[in-house]
Amino acid sequence: MEGADDDVPLILTWEDANSGLLSDDGERNGVGPYDILNTQVIPTAGLPPNYRAHNASLQQSWEMNYQEAAIYLQEGENNDKFFTHPRNPKALAAYLFAHNHIFYLMELLTALLLMVLSLCEAPAVPTLRLDVYVHATLELLALVMVAFELCMKLRWLGFHTFIRHKRTMVKTSVLMLQFVEAIVVLIRQTSHLRVTRALRPIFLVDCRYCGAVRRNLRQIFQSLPPFIDILLLLLFFMIIFAILGFCLFSPNASDPYFNTLENSIVSLFVLLTTANFPDVMMPAYSRNRWSCVFFIIYLSIELYFIMNLLLAVVFDTFNGVEKMKFKSLLLHKRSAIDHAFQLLVSRQRPTGVSLKQFDGLMRFYRPRMSARDRFLTFKTLSSAGAPILSLDDFYKFYEVIGLKWKARRSGEHWFDDLPHTTFLIFKGINLLVKSKAFQYTMYVVVAVNGVWILIETYMLNSGFSWSRIVPLSYIVFLTIYGVDVLLKIIGLGPLAYFSSGWNLFDFSVTVFAFLGLIVLAFNMEPFYFIVVLRSLQLLRVFKIKQRYRNVLDTMFELFPRMASLGLTLIIFYYSFAIVGMEFFADVIYPNCCNASTVADSYRQINVTIGNRTVLDEGYYYLNNFNNILSSFVTLFELTVVNNWYITMEGVTSMTTHWSRLYFMTFYIVTMVVMTIIVAFILDAFVFRMNYSRKNKEPQLDPEDENGIVFEAEVSRDEALDTLELYKQTCPGISSINSIQGVLLAMDRSGSSSLVYLGRRSRTKSDLSMKMYEEEIREWYAEYSRENLPQSDRCLVEEELDNPPLCPDPEHEP
Amino acid sequence: MEGADDDVPLILTWEDANSGLLSDDGERNGVGPYDILNTQVIPTAGLPPNYRAHNASLQQSWEMNYQEAAIYLQEGENNDKFFTHPRNPKALAAYLFAHNHIFYLMELLTALLLMVLSLCEAPAVPTLRLDVYVHATLELLALVMVAFELCMKLRWLGFHTFIRHKRTMVKTSVLMLQFVEAIVVLIRQTSHLRVTRALRPIFLVDCRYCGAVRRNLRQIFQSLPPFIDILLLLLFFMIIFAILGFCLFSPNASDPYFNTLENSIVSLFVLLTTANFPDVMMPAYSRNRWSCVFFIIYLSIELYFIMNLLLAVVFDTFNGVEKMKFKSLLLHKRSAIDHAFQLLVSRQRPTGVSLKQFDGLMRFYRPRMSARDRFLTFKTLSSAGAPILSLDDFYKFYEVIGLKWKARRSGEHWFDDLPHTTFLIFKGINLLVKSKAFQYTMYVVVAVNGVWILIETYMLNSGFSWSRIVPLSYIVFLTIYGVDVLLKIIGLGPLAYFSSGWNLFDFSVTVFAFLGLIVLAFNMEPFYFIVVLRSLQLLRVFKIKQRYRNVLDTMFELFPRMASLGLTLIIFYYSFAIVGMEFFADVIYPNCCNASTVADSYRQINVTIGNRTVLDEGYYYLNNFNNILSSFVTLFELTVVNNWYITMEGVTSMTTHWSRLYFMTFYIVTMVVMTIIVAFILDAFVFRMNYSRKNKEPQLDPEDENGIVFEAEVSRDEALDTLELYKQTCPGISSINSIQGVLLAMDRSGSSSLVYLGRRSRTKSDLSMKMYEEEIREWYAEYSRENLPQSDRCLVEEELDNPPLCPDPEHEP
Repeated sequence: MEGADDDVPLILTWEDANSGLLSDDGERNGVGPYDILNTQVIPTAGLPPNYRAHNASLQQSWEMNYQEAAIYLQEGENNDKFFTHPRNPKALAAYLFAHNHIFYLMELLTALLLMVLSLCEAPAVPTLRLDVYVHATLELLALVMVAFELCMKLRWLGFHTFIRHKRTMVKTSVLMLQFVEAIVVLIRQTSHLRVTRALRPIFLVDCRYCGAVRRNLRQIFQSLPPFIDILLLLLFFMIIFAILGFCLFSPNASDPYFNTLENSIVSLFVLLTTANFPDVMMPAYSRNRWSCVFFIIYLSIELYFIMNLLLAVVFDTFNGVEKMKFKSLLLHKRSAIDHAFQLLVSRQRPTGVSLKQFDGLMRFYRPRMSARDRFLTFKTLSSAGAPILSLDDFYKFYEVIGLKWKARRSGEHWFDDLPHTTFLIFKGINLLVKSKAFQYTMYVVVAVNGVWILIETYMLNSGFSWSRIVPLSYIVFLTIYGVDVLLKIIGLGPLAYFSSGWNLFDFSVTVFAFLGLIVLAFNMEPFYFIVVLRSLQLLRVFKIKQRYRNVLDTMFELFPRMASLGLTLIIFYYSFAIVGMEFFADVIYPNCCNASTVADSYRQINVTIGNRTVLDEGYYYLNNFNNILSSFVTLFELTVVNNWYITMEGVTSMTTHWSRLYFMTFYIVTMVVMTIIVAFILDAFVFRMNYSRKNKEPQLDPEDENGIVFEAEVSRDEALDTLELYKQTCPGISSINSIQGVLLAMDRSGSSSLVYLGRRSRTKSDLSMKMYEEEIREWYAEYSRENLPQSDRCLVEEELDNPPLCPDPEHEP
Repeated sequence: MEGADDDVPLILTWEDANSGLLSDDGERNGVGPYDILNTQVIPTAGLPPNYRAHNASLQQSWEMNYQEAAIYLQEGENNDKFFTHPRNPKALAAYLFAHNHIFYLMELLTALLLMVLSLCEAPAVPTLRLDVYVHATLELLALVMVAFELCMKLRWLGFHTFIRHKRTMVKTSVLMLQFVEAIVVLIRQTSHLRVTRALRPIFLVDCRYCGAVRRNLRQIFQSLPPFIDILLLLLFFMIIFAILGFCLFSPNASDPYFNTLENSIVSLFVLLTTANFPDVMMPAYSRNRWSCVFFIIYLSIELYFIMNLLLAVVFDTFNGVEKMKFKSLLLHKRSAIDHAFQLLVSRQRPTGVSLKQFDGLMRFYRPRMSARDRFLTFKTLSSAGAPILSLDDFYKFYEVIGLKWKARRSGEHWFDDLPHTTFLIFKGINLLVKSKAFQYTMYVVVAVNGVWILIETYMLNSGFSWSRIVPLSYIVFLTIYGVDVLLKIIGLGPLAYFSSGWNLFDFSVTVFAFLGLIVLAFNMEPFYFIVVLRSLQLLRVFKIKQRYRNVLDTMFELFPRMASLGLTLIIFYYSFAIVGMEFFADVIYPNCCNASTVADSYRQINVTIGNRTVLDEGYYYLNNFNNILSSFVTLFELTVVNNWYITMEGVTSMTTHWSRLYFMTFYIVTMVVMTIIVAFILDAFVFRMNYSRKNKEPQLDPEDENGIVFEAEVSRDEALDTLELYKQTCPGISSINSIQGVLLAMDRSGSSSLVYLGRRSRTKSDLSMKMYEEEIREWYAEYSRENLPQSDRCLVEEELDNPPLCPDPEHEP
């Protein structure tokens, strides 16, 4: 092929600038508008001493270029700043060590271990309690691991970059603190007041896999300033009303809510969450009916106006932040592609990347991608089938890279290779299972079952009792479900069947229900009731309507982000739970808090009312901070906000009234997070609605249903050429096999070309690309105008919290 | 002037088409692209029999054209459909009768009287109870008034249009029903179960002055379909979880929340509002700690996901509806201007309106506007000072019509005419009061007072007791405030002072505080504490920051809409209150509901706990439906949602369990209204933020601070010409005086021209005009393309709920 071996890279990386390969040294630095790292002298270690011997050394240079380009593309994908790009082979080794899934997994597991430890530490979950020296040793072990990870990072980043990276510095100092404390615990053999354990989530947040959580946290912090502004307004009104309330209601001796100014403020704070309404009004209301005006005005202003304003402000900020984030990510990726492109072009062909170079890149970028897929990706990128990729082609890199390739065939059944009779039977089942009639029949069955269960349960009215005699209807419905599952597995093939979330759900529900029946036979508590969950299948019926389709699709698209928001919330929970446990563990128990106004909720005692004696059971002692699991449940209750003041007052009455600070802070923090969640859902949904309004005919656009689909046609000649190329360059047998597989498939189908389809699911980024089409063009134009890539590196604030750092002097040409 | 008397109207209204004034009849129907009503034969009643005598009849024709044009413009302003346009002089008389403020006021008062009657009817407020025959007679009286109003409408609309107008028909049938019922009450001398009283707000909603409420209701109904869709999803999940919950928790005998399927559903419905959390979880939680998973999943799905989805869907719909409404209003106004313009042009000048005709129009459109202002409005409309208005000029009509005109003078003090020494003193005070230093000093005083009160109140801690010895600080601060108020009144002039809302607020707070001091001297309960409200002045300090300025400005802009939304809510409250009173009056009393699970909240009895005896005071018996005021408070409590199930269960235990339907319906209705309020605030605020982002330099744009300002310069010649014109045409002495006033002012200032400034406050519509600039251009283009005005009448769905009605056959050319 076109004398690929004679290509000389335009730029050499990690090498002496005075390389013999480049005859003209001046050209080296004047390459295009792109700022490429100053190359460094490569130490000879690991390389043959005379590696400049033409052919071998050329090969070496290319391999290094491929690797650096792959690193650039990875940095673009992960939104890592280029100032953390490895500068020399030593850094490269550390970089490669710290950037693979085993390392990431280790990072994650260490962080999780540290967090899970609190199940076993001092106020431990009873069944999981460990001795002090056991858990302290485990902790030390984990901390050593973290230290090791940090050392790798130091080696990769270099000392200067390391101490400038804020997040890493915070992590380092927390690590040291924890180290000292763990050692103190080991020596004293007892846990002291260790509030610093609340900082443990920092290790988790710093994990590579928790990028989404980090992004959420950043977004929360960015939304904070406007939030705090409105919060001040809220508190201002609260104080004014508290003084007024105190003046108005404190003369009423039977009103415990306003008897001091502090109580007055606390009452109104709780009233803001509506948790004590109308109770807080009742004593005043029973004295004078017009006092309700005070409360109505307060709630109208605070709850119905300012709280909504809060949402509006956060929503507005959130909107802006989302768009800016998208822009910076997009430009960062473009910049990464620019860098990679310059490393891949040769002096002979300075405007394009050939398949050989692309393949070399991909071997580093996606080591496990098959040669066939690499080739197909290249085909998809190259516009109009040109043999080399221009920069504009290469810009599509990230859109194409995630595709899963599959040959387009007429029949795609898993049973295609079976004998004819069997094939016909399977084909029949396949058609049946795929038919609308079958689907709707199943919906009807599910609906009937749902109604049946509803009626049956309603008939039971006098409490649910599990009898050993299983009603016939159970068996009938379960049989139908079982047949349904079997038919579908046979008809669609197990692979296709289990690749759908809905099918997986059906399958597990049915299996659980069967297990329940079997368990029933052994006289244990059965769980046939799981079948009730099958009614969730009816959600599919909702899909018939456009709006539900939108809602459900949005739901599924939102799911990853929602999960990361949930995780963010859990991290906050964790910190608060640790603080709560340190201060309030074992403070709450039955019949505590008799001095407080909420004593009733904690009381467990026989009470005489009139002439009857009843057990007055207050369950609130269960909402305690005795171990981390209880703490989580208690914190969830505080999040839901209803009756949260009972927990607060209970704890306060057993400790000091400064405890209220903890509960109020928690309320405000969850309010921030919850408001952001609401803003997020609102934004995502409105965005989605606007999108589907802009692209009005989703049925005409196959992408809308199946995600993104690309097509690539491969002719026999191309396949042969590629095979030849691979034989020349890449000694791996698997690559050659994979291309030979293509030729084999062509032989089998008897055609001279084969069409492959590349599929991936649609992401929010794809939607954004369509939505902001015009803006994106502007951004790109702006980006091209600013010739120096430094400037757009600064736009990308992700990962780097210290803007003055960039433009980096090292990057000046 | 230019032989105005010879102008012949292009179109004659309410007259025989074969008018002698129009020589060519064909031209009559072929006038431009605008569809004008077929003119009708005018009866001679009220007109001289030979009114076609040239000059007098011409004058008559013009007058009639002016009047009809004014009516068109009014219809455009009020968004009345053109199909209700009066067709003949008889209709015109009724139209005029039914379209003035006295009639509107009568309408409003009648409707209010009807609503207020429920204070005195059967379950009456004790002090306002009236005998049956008194209130029934009053009701009959009010109903007769309504009937009379309807008759006027019938006369104006004609029978055919009348029965096609849905709202009017609903009103008529409700009226008849009420009539019958009122008579039955009078005969039986006792009130029967009159749930239909809940329909009374219909009369109020139909009032001219309640247009905003009508608009809100329409918006609520338009947002309903998507709302209901998501609500179904919500209920679907609720039922599935209810069955699951019943299966899981009913074996637990101590769990009253899930012992039957009905209880299970009700518990989860209440849980959706979080009112019974964590109580509903506690029995199950105390049995098995993992049961909390059920509740956490339920709340996560229902409360944190679907409820937010609900908001998102409503917000999205709301956004669209707002924009469509703005579009339709805009095009309706344009259409009205088109109609009016055609009536004002003469055959001699078919493309423009002269001052004479404009003045004639304005005499009908704004009878109380002075001749000077009419002239100034004309000047503002005419581009480049042309003597006639083109159609494009005339399109600005609605932007200009609300302006308040004032001559621009150098010094605008109220004391300009006082003697020199006094002037200097006043001038000094004026400068002082306007200085920043004075303002900030007052802020500091207010802040100090605020903190002082806070500290003082905190010191009092042991309950607030009013002593007769007034603390010195009170008197000092009050004196400062008094001086502040006096200085400001003197410095700014009472008119300028009281025109600011903030000043009014300061004044009343200060006066009340003084009254409080005086009252203190007479040993009555004082209300010095009103001074606390002065701290609200600190809100002004918030204005220093841009975000607060935005928030506060938005708040004030929102206020009218918020008020109308509040009124809408009150109308819902009223209907629910009536139904509640009819079914649940006197059902709740102390120590009722002992059979229910919420008996504690209603109990008032001595209870022995351990060995102490305390009064267990449950105040919830106060939340009843015994009269309309109590009902309103109870409904407000239900709106706030916390502990609402206690009221529900109390009432349910004393009546049937179908009562729950009432409470659940109320919850869903308020949820709709509240979601819309949230969507509205969100929309308004985000809109406003986008607006101020689009127009980034508000300080450069004087409109942004002072509302909309127009300028008009009048030269002496113009004024003289206008005076001449008025002398010719309009015999009113006041008009001539008003123009002479302009000349006088010129003499006094010694200049040959005078600049007038027209001001009005900015409305949302002005903002929308700027925001949608591009879309508006498109809409106008589209509008011009569709030559037939019917089509855009159909766009305007306001007032007309029956789209098939339009295009109206009567309007076909």
